[in-house]
Amino acid sequence: MQYLNFDKTSIYKKLPEHARKTFSFKNSLDAKRVENCIVPMAAGLKYSWAAKAVDDECVKLLQELADETELTAKYKALLNGEMMNTGEKRKVLHHLLRGEQGQPVIENGKNIGDFYRKELSRFCDFAKAVHDNKYKGTTGKPFSTVIQIGIGGSDLGPRALYLALDNWAETGGKKKLSAKFISNVDPDDASQIISSSPLDQCLFILVSKSGTTQETLANELFVKDKLAKAGLDPSKHMIAVTSETSPLARNSAYLDSFYIDDYIGGRYSSSSAVGGCVLSLAFGPDVFREFLAGAAEADKLALEKDIKKNAALLDALIGVWERNFLKLPYTAVLPYSQALSRFPAHLQQMDMESNGKRVSRDGEPINYETGPVIFGEPGTNGQHSFYQLLHQGTSVIPLQFIGFTESQRGDDVTVDNSISQKKLAANLAAQIVAFAKGQESGDRNKEFPGGRPSSLIYGKRLTPSVLGNLLAHYENKVMFQGFVWNVNSFDQEGVQLGKILTKKVLSGNYGDSALEAYSKLLGVI
Amino acid sequence: MQYLNFDKTSIYKKLPEHARKTFSFKNSLDAKRVENCIVPMAAGLKYSWAAKAVDDECVKLLQELADETELTAKYKALLNGEMMNTGEKRKVLHHLLRGEQGQPVIENGKNIGDFYRKELSRFCDFAKAVHDNKYKGTTGKPFSTVIQIGIGGSDLGPRALYLALDNWAETGGKKKLSAKFISNVDPDDASQIISSSPLDQCLFILVSKSGTTQETLANELFVKDKLAKAGLDPSKHMIAVTSETSPLARNSAYLDSFYIDDYIGGRYSSSSAVGGCVLSLAFGPDVFREFLAGAAEADKLALEKDIKKNAALLDALIGVWERNFLKLPYTAVLPYSQALSRFPAHLQQMDMESNGKRVSRDGEPINYETGPVIFGEPGTNGQHSFYQLLHQGTSVIPLQFIGFTESQRGDDVTVDNSISQKKLAANLAAQIVAFAKGQESGDRNKEFPGGRPSSLIYGKRLTPSVLGNLLAHYENKVMFQGFVWNVNSFDQEGVQLGKILTKKVLSGNYGDSALEAYSKLLGVI
Repeated sequence: MQYLNFDKTSIYKKLPEHARKTFSFKNSLDAKRVENCIVPMAAGLKYSWAAKAVDDECVKLLQELADETELTAKYKALLNGEMMNTGEKRKVLHHLLRGEQGQPVIENGKNIGDFYRKELSRFCDFAKAVHDNKYKGTTGKPFSTVIQIGIGGSDLGPRALYLALDNWAETGGKKKLSAKFISNVDPDDASQIISSSPLDQCLFILVSKSGTTQETLANELFVKDKLAKAGLDPSKHMIAVTSETSPLARNSAYLDSFYIDDYIGGRYSSSSAVGGCVLSLAFGPDVFREFLAGAAEADKLALEKDIKKNAALLDALIGVWERNFLKLPYTAVLPYSQALSRFPAHLQQMDMESNGKRVSRDGEPINYETGPVIFGEPGTNGQHSFYQLLHQGTSVIPLQFIGFTESQRGDDVTVDNSISQKKLAANLAAQIVAFAKGQESGDRNKEFPGGRPSSLIYGKRLTPSVLGNLLAHYENKVMFQGFVWNVNSFDQEGVQLGKILTKKVLSGNYGDSALEAYSKLLGVI
Repeated sequence: MQYLNFDKTSIYKKLPEHARKTFSFKNSLDAKRVENCIVPMAAGLKYSWAAKAVDDECVKLLQELADETELTAKYKALLNGEMMNTGEKRKVLHHLLRGEQGQPVIENGKNIGDFYRKELSRFCDFAKAVHDNKYKGTTGKPFSTVIQIGIGGSDLGPRALYLALDNWAETGGKKKLSAKFISNVDPDDASQIISSSPLDQCLFILVSKSGTTQETLANELFVKDKLAKAGLDPSKHMIAVTSETSPLARNSAYLDSFYIDDYIGGRYSSSSAVGGCVLSLAFGPDVFREFLAGAAEADKLALEKDIKKNAALLDALIGVWERNFLKLPYTAVLPYSQALSRFPAHLQQMDMESNGKRVSRDGEPINYETGPVIFGEPGTNGQHSFYQLLHQGTSVIPLQFIGFTESQRGDDVTVDNSISQKKLAANLAAQIVAFAKGQESGDRNKEFPGGRPSSLIYGKRLTPSVLGNLLAHYENKVMFQGFVWNVNSFDQEGVQLGKILTKKVLSGNYGDSALEAYSKLLGVI
């Protein structure tokens, strides 16, 4: 297998020529094209790319790109436990949390899949024991609320997934506990959550792989202090999710601890105990297992070499096409589902932290653009906000729509002969066509240029398995793009410098007059 | 006064030459530069631009730009009631909601400032009457919760401001009612809010200027249906905020109605009854008036011609410098304050809907870039998410930091010799310097290029007047940028096409085979 910088491949030289031909999907978007440009995904979802600036010739070239850069072979190598996090010299095994698509991964005689499955069983059993009232708080009351303390991947993914399933669980009789999240080192965050929660009925999950995350440790002590002041025993109200080598492991300060290892990156940890504890406690272990099964199905489909049968791969390649050859530096994620309100924020981390890189996996400089800026809000809210710029601004922003036929709660109202869910879906269909085709007008202010590309992932209803599939789709998309760009998508050296300088500020050894001056402005000194 | 397209000004030709000289703030950022590059704002805030790629020569050129394009004169004309929303042929009077900076605006013998002040008094009196239990729900219980039904500007601004002051009000003894918001036409949004609220103690605010917003009317009927089914009289639980000519005005279906007019754009309506009713009900009318006073102070400072004394103007011009001459198409807004968690989402609408335009205020095409993409999340959360790309990605993203010396709740914990609030501020100082100066390293993967520009707005504590100032700062910044680009920042024709096509879908008269095909995929048909 070869790991070449993208500009050293032969396909890299071919694509600019094709980009100059400018295929007009604006003029060719009709029912036939819509029907022809659909890729089935797992869990009943489908990926539609009809409104992308991609013609048959482009599909051929993208297939050539996938083949030349050996994308599915690299994915297999990752599954088989090859050291794909080259910077930190680690394997990348988040797929193994939800299924065994490759060979068993054995290290020093230890089967890592077995370890992950054992932890899965352990936290599922723990959740069940909590639901069965086998664990209770200091005052003997059952737990009613679970509060996750964590930041970054220990917050964004689990929070987005919790919100995505909350309505589904509540109306389907699956809701067990309410969940809340404390993440920011801003003390107002923890203070507000704590002051509005029934402390004697709260179970906290402390999440830090290293056990050294500044924000999380500060918030842990904040919470323990409040528990103690309320006359409660912190060790009866807290579990830990960490690595086996961290100071939090096997510590009597916690009811129990559940483990991940260095092969699970923070932004890919939603399928581990990081997401699993809070989701199992909130909705029951079976719901979390359904979610994992949906993700595993998507992981399996992502092995397919034919890009017209592999939605994650095709989505990745179209993204590269737009980023490097159509020169579009951003992507908006627009779910027409209030339940997915924080899913774009999770994708923002997943994508930008993975592929926001400027050196190759071998630490060599690269001479092409990598990861785009990701942003988004749910529709129809976004329509009344930033869509003006998307339609009529001077920049073209590639769009990723997500939509469902049915609502989660099934509680609706008929106004003007249609239910709200139909209006929601009608708005989504209308936007895709409006962006693609635009509108001519004698009044230039009412003119829409069109030609603004979008894709659509759609399905019947947002369920746990659908959500698992959605998550894995994006994880695999980002992975494939990282392979194309030849970057290491699994480290995050870019977060280190800020940590070093923060320590300097807090220790008073600035070593830089500007750093000291800013610290004065902000009242640190 | 002249309204020229930007590329027709003489300064437009001078700036590219200066951009080629590439001033290195990376190397010149020291304590002296930090101290020299501060502009005092209203309400005790300050604007620091030391870490921007702007040297003395650039400041001179930007002053020349401000002078040649008559930015403050255009602002005065707007204040004096000139028809600045050229597309819709309307005045633009949101400043008048919070103070009288220009001449009185009289139309058909009516003093519009008097009208705004009368409505302000009316809704302040209404809020007081609710707090005094002069209004009660159907069952005679006092109101405990206010729920705003609105979308776009009727949602994002009021929601961001409510969250920004909630902790301040709660710990300062000012909190009167809890507030919630229903916006999306997705029925899961309204259903979840309603199912988790004590309906007999809920007061709803229906907000739609036109009285015809599809999402809002659907949600109104959703709510009324739930009230009726709970045996409650909807007319005792709902007020309206609308225009005097809308179907919602003077309607016995509401307890009372409060009015705005066509001169208050949705995204600029937070200072009107749109934001004022919910904020006055939640925190008391005095808090809302403090907020208005802070905004008025900022509006007054924005009249200053010297860009080194006018933070909104300087911020605007630096943004233009980055967008058109340094060719940077995005801006991240990064408040180090959990209370401002949704402030970036509000700015996203304010900025992108105002200046995401491709024709001039006279409807002529323009040949330069206008509004950038705006996105952001609070720090330190963002540090553990997308900052990797900001530090080490291949694109440079201009940054706008906001930070405070004190927390809102004053509830903190000491860990490793510092309270969390100090850690928060230390992180912010560290990030500014890390972005500006970067770090060399023998390992390229640990190398930070630096030279990534940021500004900082900072102050002591986030209070109502500080928040009013922050809001007005950004409103005025966006206004000045619109003047430079010679666009109409006050209409939003880009939202119309989607509405037209949605109606076609819902009526079944598609008129386009792709539109019909997408409607099928999404289950509308």
